[in-house]
Amino acid sequence: MMNLLGPVTIREELDKLKEHWSPRVIGKVNNQYIKVAKVQGELVWHKHDDEDEMFLIVYGQLLIQMEDRDDIKLGPGEFYVVPRGVMHNPIAEQECGLVLIETVTTKHTGDTESPLTRSIEEQEGLR
Amino acid sequence: MMNLLGPVTIREELDKLKEHWSPRVIGKVNNQYIKVAKVQGELVWHKHDDEDEMFLIVYGQLLIQMEDRDDIKLGPGEFYVVPRGVMHNPIAEQECGLVLIETVTTKHTGDTESPLTRSIEEQEGLR
Repeated sequence: MMNLLGPVTIREELDKLKEHWSPRVIGKVNNQYIKVAKVQGELVWHKHDDEDEMFLIVYGQLLIQMEDRDDIKLGPGEFYVVPRGVMHNPIAEQECGLVLIETVTTKHTGDTESPLTRSIEEQEGLR
Repeated sequence: MMNLLGPVTIREELDKLKEHWSPRVIGKVNNQYIKVAKVQGELVWHKHDDEDEMFLIVYGQLLIQMEDRDDIKLGPGEFYVVPRGVMHNPIAEQECGLVLIETVTTKHTGDTESPLTRSIEEQEGLR
């Protein structure tokens, strides 16, 4: 569960993750969740109609393909905010550890249901 | 000014800062600004009545003193969210580079005016 009481060490939270593409909430600032995720391979093309999504890379490399604009390549210490409404598809050739910041209501595969879709309850181990 | 078009490299944005305690906006996700700041010494005791404030350390160490609760010590890769309404005072013995995430309306010294108070316009070099 989320630690609201003390410092959060991002790398330790990443190390706890066992599955790829299964973000875990590690904090909350105002109406935004801070999440960590380990990703490898390709997620799925999707968009979030009303919500921007921030990707901050901790280790590895992430390619974000987007509809109607250039791909974005991100490495450690770099971030990009995918604007609301833009179809996007994150891809990691090798394992990549990242921080996601997004509105508490955001589903990680947006309006696209996929075998990789996880609810917050599943992500939090609540079911 | 803010770069909304490509990847943002946090360390490069920190390197551009000349003054301590003068946060600079480097991104926006939903209603939150992503800012970088170089800090050294002590800011001022203050609070934000309606807004949480996230401190993520890039280099150095930050001590966050808070009213009615234990101090928080943060190092690189660690973050803490100061809850809304809590009086706090960030202190860095040596220079510390950090990322702040806070609501677009948040003033960095909260409801306390100090010689270190900067408006977003000043921070952005707009005046």
